[in-house]
Amino acid sequence: MSITPTFPPQEEADKGLSSLARGVIGSEILRIASEIRALKAKGAAICNLTVGDFDPAFFPIPTELLNGTRDALAQGHTNYPPSDGVLPLREAVVRLYARELGLNYPVDSVLVAGGARPLLYASYRTLIDPGDIAVYPVPSWNNNHYAYLSGAKSVEIPVTASTNFFPTADDLRPHLTHARMLCINSPLNPTGTAIDRNELKRISELVVEVNESRKTKGERPLYFVFDQVYWNLTFHGVVHETPVALVPETAPYTLLLDAISKSLCATGMRVGWGVMPPAVRKRMADILGHVGAWAPKAEQMAVATLLDAPEKIAAFQTNMKAHVKERLDALYNGLSAMKRDGLPVEAISPQGAIYLSAQFNLIGKTAFGQKLQTNDDIRRLLLNHAGLAVVPFQAFGLKVDTGWFRMSVGAVSMPDIEQGLVRLRETILAAN
Amino acid sequence: MSITPTFPPQEEADKGLSSLARGVIGSEILRIASEIRALKAKGAAICNLTVGDFDPAFFPIPTELLNGTRDALAQGHTNYPPSDGVLPLREAVVRLYARELGLNYPVDSVLVAGGARPLLYASYRTLIDPGDIAVYPVPSWNNNHYAYLSGAKSVEIPVTASTNFFPTADDLRPHLTHARMLCINSPLNPTGTAIDRNELKRISELVVEVNESRKTKGERPLYFVFDQVYWNLTFHGVVHETPVALVPETAPYTLLLDAISKSLCATGMRVGWGVMPPAVRKRMADILGHVGAWAPKAEQMAVATLLDAPEKIAAFQTNMKAHVKERLDALYNGLSAMKRDGLPVEAISPQGAIYLSAQFNLIGKTAFGQKLQTNDDIRRLLLNHAGLAVVPFQAFGLKVDTGWFRMSVGAVSMPDIEQGLVRLRETILAAN
Repeated sequence: MSITPTFPPQEEADKGLSSLARGVIGSEILRIASEIRALKAKGAAICNLTVGDFDPAFFPIPTELLNGTRDALAQGHTNYPPSDGVLPLREAVVRLYARELGLNYPVDSVLVAGGARPLLYASYRTLIDPGDIAVYPVPSWNNNHYAYLSGAKSVEIPVTASTNFFPTADDLRPHLTHARMLCINSPLNPTGTAIDRNELKRISELVVEVNESRKTKGERPLYFVFDQVYWNLTFHGVVHETPVALVPETAPYTLLLDAISKSLCATGMRVGWGVMPPAVRKRMADILGHVGAWAPKAEQMAVATLLDAPEKIAAFQTNMKAHVKERLDALYNGLSAMKRDGLPVEAISPQGAIYLSAQFNLIGKTAFGQKLQTNDDIRRLLLNHAGLAVVPFQAFGLKVDTGWFRMSVGAVSMPDIEQGLVRLRETILAAN
Repeated sequence: MSITPTFPPQEEADKGLSSLARGVIGSEILRIASEIRALKAKGAAICNLTVGDFDPAFFPIPTELLNGTRDALAQGHTNYPPSDGVLPLREAVVRLYARELGLNYPVDSVLVAGGARPLLYASYRTLIDPGDIAVYPVPSWNNNHYAYLSGAKSVEIPVTASTNFFPTADDLRPHLTHARMLCINSPLNPTGTAIDRNELKRISELVVEVNESRKTKGERPLYFVFDQVYWNLTFHGVVHETPVALVPETAPYTLLLDAISKSLCATGMRVGWGVMPPAVRKRMADILGHVGAWAPKAEQMAVATLLDAPEKIAAFQTNMKAHVKERLDALYNGLSAMKRDGLPVEAISPQGAIYLSAQFNLIGKTAFGQKLQTNDDIRRLLLNHAGLAVVPFQAFGLKVDTGWFRMSVGAVSMPDIEQGLVRLRETILAAN
């Protein structure tokens, strides 16, 4: 016998779900991705700058990671890892941070999970009681969704190109007095900018200052969640810094989030880690243990081995970063040339991650018979007429239509970019 | 420069964390595991029946899954999968359920995640508003933790050996009127029992009856979360059934949870799926997408291929189940022999999963100078004197000290069991 069940439509079924589920907003980027797939299916040439990912044809994982994972599978690393990560990986992360970041954390500070994403989610759940204040700049990645899922009261600090898309200590000061957490990501998804060393130091000092004051009053502390998943990917002389190295007194309040997803082009292998005060780690490990966002075991074993081979990581990243930088520079140079030619285009010189910030000042103009009123109007113009797929900063929590977009280069070739730039110029010229 | 940060102790740090984090209870089994490690380090012979896992030396994954994952890695399946799972796997699950369970679900019903664990967590988050009632039997796996994490009001139905450790429809009836969800797992972790076909049918009819009544009143439905992660592992003629096949009208309210973790001995590969109404799936996918409990991509691709090879799965499971059954039967026969000899021991004949339920009626007795007052006293007696490591039903939400324990056979050899039974008999004989 065979059963073909029938189901109620979304609108009806939604009434039966939790208010959390009814209100959740899925990834904007996924919606855009489906539009792109539809266009591609029609044969359109698309320079797809939307996905924060790598095309393995251009950006394969390190050979050592590939072989190490394959070997670990063959050796039978197919059963449960400890839910907080295999010990060799946690120990390797300790050595990595000591060696590369000058931070001597104990192994009890390291929590392994299935990418940085669950660690950011779990940071909110571990620190935030519903109604607690989470402060973060916009645009930034997914903080709005995690605030929603944890019931945080969001204090969003809109940032602009004038401060390299980071908040300053002065911007933050009035908002931190009653905040439970401050979330900063550098290098920043979506902007590709990196926070200035001195500004990060001032912000870190501010976090300590707030907490010293709270200590005397017996109040719960302000935590500083520092998402540094792109820390290996900096360009043009930018040097990554951590709050803890700049201001060691931040350590009891700081959570460093990290993963192999971007640094080793391994987004699909689901290995990340957080480094944080052991007491915070213990609670977060218990939460994530139940949530089940664990990293697969064979991948963990291979990463553990690779992290202890700095020369191999360096060789891989030198090559990989050259290819990322080549693409970012090509986009930046192409956009800068348009600007020089008087087109309403801005771009920020590449600093880190795999992203470039570009502004198309087209709001109020008309192209192909359509008046452009929102970032999403511009996005569709570029997609449909220039075959250039980009993500508006709205997908990263920004409310205002500023004409700024994220361009992600991990899944495109140099010819894709060059041809895309030609089509882009023609399209922008068509807007008046 | 190198920084060695200092941190506050747990008690002090806890004051700064969310009430969710302060109250979370980690896995009991992990605490027991650390005691076992300590004993083993001293050279003690331990028959470790605690972990719900497989030792890959006895229970390797299918060759096709090993080679398929290795090949998928080499082919570059190292970048992001879609957050809800690669389409080939979702389609293969559709075919698997049609072929093996007689259920023709659309592909929009299938959500892939990093194991069954995140799907159970997400089921609570998708269905439960804080204060909503979740009904589940105890002992059962982790429902108490998910109820805590979602703010559900738990209605725990204590079940006993007299009903094969399952609730009957009559047990449930008074509790379902205002409930939001009913969670049943069969074959059941921790008891190794499987629900009776007719009782499952009556429970399914009851779920439909409750929902028909609610529909007329415009009330939110009662959902039936049916965790069938062990459905391939049944023994001695037990046939697995689903609520949807028995009572098709349950389909709009039923969530089927599943994974390769147990059926393919692949707990560390982190691939699971849920099959449910498409509208529920959509919201759960958005939640899990942000939570980040994704399955790794190469593993997904390999599972997709293997699910379409029923003869290979059958060959693997025939062999694997013979080894599981051999162990469960050896334990059951050993315990039954003790019972025949008048020792205060009970056991339930193996029906499914990798577990055996055993009762040691030692409460009130004294052994090695210690009075046994709780299940945990008995657990420590067996561990320290018999070198037999078992998990009390307390670890699965049961409040009462009934002398019942879970024995898990995936990580022990036949000689481990035989020697453990000899030591067990001597230890029980020593208790008066």
